[in-house]
Amino acid sequence: MTLSPRKVVTVVAEAALESRLVADLQKLGVPGYTVSPAHGAGVRGQREGDIEGGNIRVETVVQEDLANKILDRLQTHYFPHYACVAWVSDAGIVRGERF
Amino acid sequence: MTLSPRKVVTVVAEAALESRLVADLQKLGVPGYTVSPAHGAGVRGQREGDIEGGNIRVETVVQEDLANKILDRLQTHYFPHYACVAWVSDAGIVRGERF
Amino acid sequence: MTLSPRKVVTVVAEAALESRLVADLQKLGVPGYTVSPAHGAGVRGQREGDIEGGNIRVETVVQEDLANKILDRLQTHYFPHYACVAWVSDAGIVRGERF
Repeated sequence: MTLSPRKVVTVVAEAALESRLVADLQKLGVPGYTVSPAHGAGVRGQREGDIEGGNIRVETVVQEDLANKILDRLQTHYFPHYACVAWVSDAGIVRGERF
Repeated sequence: MTLSPRKVVTVVAEAALESRLVADLQKLGVPGYTVSPAHGAGVRGQREGDIEGGNIRVETVVQEDLANKILDRLQTHYFPHYACVAWVSDAGIVRGERF
Repeated sequence: MTLSPRKVVTVVAEAALESRLVADLQKLGVPGYTVSPAHGAGVRGQREGDIEGGNIRVETVVQEDLANKILDRLQTHYFPHYACVAWVSDAGIVRGERF
């Protein structure tokens, strides 16, 4: 099985940010994304999402350059203003031609 | 802490495929799997799961040869027919003897 | 984009264990955690969570030494007693100073 290398970018944020975050991901050119409901506590100490209706965990599998663009946008437009964390990990996909 | 290397196979598909996908994973011999509810947009452009009642995000932690068998089955029986994406990543587990 | 290396520890357990597991993670010093609802079948063969109200999938992004402490605690206090699985993977984060 030959796998094509990709990056998985995972973002956890308040559910209220979903539509904005997804719009930003799509503007940056992600071929797809997956949102799961979540709750938890985060970088600001308080339980995130207790007020706003929970958190979301958003995942997108992308090429490395796009992963960097996503992180760049998060760093500029999200981290300074919102309880929002993100991490990147390596993955392999079968269908390199599709995303 | 000595960790045993494993592969995490993550599959995102329409929720309607859950029972079939889980049955296939079990036939292939996975020792366990985890399903989380999800929604999103994917490789075919449309929002997946809007009709079928959402998506699922299925994860299974397996040995490399089993990961390859799973990807093989997905490539043959799922990708051509369904809005379904999958990726593989490296992980370490403590209890190498259990799964 | 310079990323700081971290470990993602993912734990899947019965939902009934959430408050105890989260308390243990916080005592060990995790800067944050994310819980998603889940269901599935696991290391003991039966469907986990069918009785207790489902499973949870808990993720925390930490430094390597803390990841080892978490695994250590899981191995001592959880794996012998509960249907509970865990794995560790590599990730990179942007904001190394925050978690």
